Amino acid sequence: MNRDLPLPRIRIVLSRPSHPGNIGAAARAMRTMGIANLYLVAPRRFPHDDAVALAAGATDVLDRAVVCDDLVQALAGTVLAAGFTARKRDLSAPARWLRDAAPDLVAQAAHDEVALVFGNETAGLSNEDLSLCRMNVMIPTAADYGSLNLGAAVQLACYELRLAALDPGSTPQGMAFAPATFDEVEGMIGHLQRAMSASGFLDPASPQRLMPRLRRLFSRAGLEREEVNILRGIVRSFMPGVD
Amino acid sequence: MNRDLPLPRIRIVLSRPSHPGNIGAAARAMRTMGIANLYLVAPRRFPHDDAVALAAGATDVLDRAVVCDDLVQALAGTVLAAGFTARKRDLSAPARWLRDAAPDLVAQAAHDEVALVFGNETAGLSNEDLSLCRMNVMIPTAADYGSLNLGAAVQLACYELRLAALDPGSTPQGMAFAPATFDEVEGMIGHLQRAMSASGFLDPASPQRLMPRLRRLFSRAGLEREEVNILRGIVRSFMPGVD
Repeated sequence: MNRDLPLPRIRIVLSRPSHPGNIGAAARAMRTMGIANLYLVAPRRFPHDDAVALAAGATDVLDRAVVCDDLVQALAGTVLAAGFTARKRDLSAPARWLRDAAPDLVAQAAHDEVALVFGNETAGLSNEDLSLCRMNVMIPTAADYGSLNLGAAVQLACYELRLAALDPGSTPQGMAFAPATFDEVEGMIGHLQRAMSASGFLDPASPQRLMPRLRRLFSRAGLEREEVNILRGIVRSFMPGVD
Repeated sequence: MNRDLPLPRIRIVLSRPSHPGNIGAAARAMRTMGIANLYLVAPRRFPHDDAVALAAGATDVLDRAVVCDDLVQALAGTVLAAGFTARKRDLSAPARWLRDAAPDLVAQAAHDEVALVFGNETAGLSNEDLSLCRMNVMIPTAADYGSLNLGAAVQLACYELRLAALDPGSTPQGMAFAPATFDEVEGMIGHLQRAMSASGFLDPASPQRLMPRLRRLFSRAGLEREEVNILRGIVRSFMPGVD
């Protein structure tokens, strides 16, 4: 792999995959495009012989795969998570086509860790998982049959990222300010949520759509590290007892 | 499938596939991209339960598949055959990258039958088969691991052809929310500023860069009316004395 490419800072996250064969197929698909970092959230069966068989030699990707309990853990350290979805959800981040999103994902990965998140074979990503993603990505399919295989979706995504990374025309645009990491944003959201519970604005027994609405707003903004610090400072000054 | 697309005149030809599962995976890959014509040259095993299982509902492609004895037969009626190869051969047609070739293949398919030809899983296309193809197409892969699965190669090819055939337009968006007006945003910012002065976070005598930083964040987000109301509600719950 060319070390100058931003591909080493891209991780593929499979959330709750059912079939170990698909994990192997995803590993092979990643490897053909020079992407090596695989994170598995609560895989039903892994390690497994079917994964090794379908990886067809890309077993180094499987050997190095990081198994996590939940998506929050798998996104630790990333500044941008793109959730792949077959249909638009109301309260999620704006959806973009894979081809249009690829240059931006690659540009971010020039400096920071970026995650591509794929859901379960049958159910896709849960709304909760999608709410943790700053960007929604869609792969265009035929109107009457959109049933992409999980490994095939990973193949298309890695292919587009590779081509975007190799395209000499797409120069990475560094952000003027350091972007907040996933952990920093989650820390701020947790802090705000505790303060809203303490103030009575949020009823923990009936959170309804408040937190998804706030997550959506912060996703759209693409928070910088200093902004997260400012927001936490404001909340702390309002509600000194909460942290 | 949109009948105006040139995709109905594109056929996928698998030459001597070994594994029926790969035939099914190819059928599924084709179907997701709106390509339905499958030709099989001397498949080792077909029809087969593995093909049906991997087709995952795209069995109409398998049912209509044309089984041929040799590639000449499978190319009958076409005016352009593109052979997919992982390496350049000396005596074959010039090789082009898939992405560069896709618009030409689609343009030809607007009027004429076009074939995309894929070789055996292990051996690829024979030199004899490649000599029957007017164009060689390559899919870019990592230098140290170019082992694309057959179904994955078909998936990438059909995806590129679909995108070349149609501009997917804008992504489907969820419900539109009413944007906040200028006055509403200014009202919220003023409210927040008064609350921060009351809490001591903002020193009115020395506001420095705090307000510009917050304005920049809110303008980047593009606030909706309901979000402004939520933010004011949060601030009111934190600092009940300020409005």
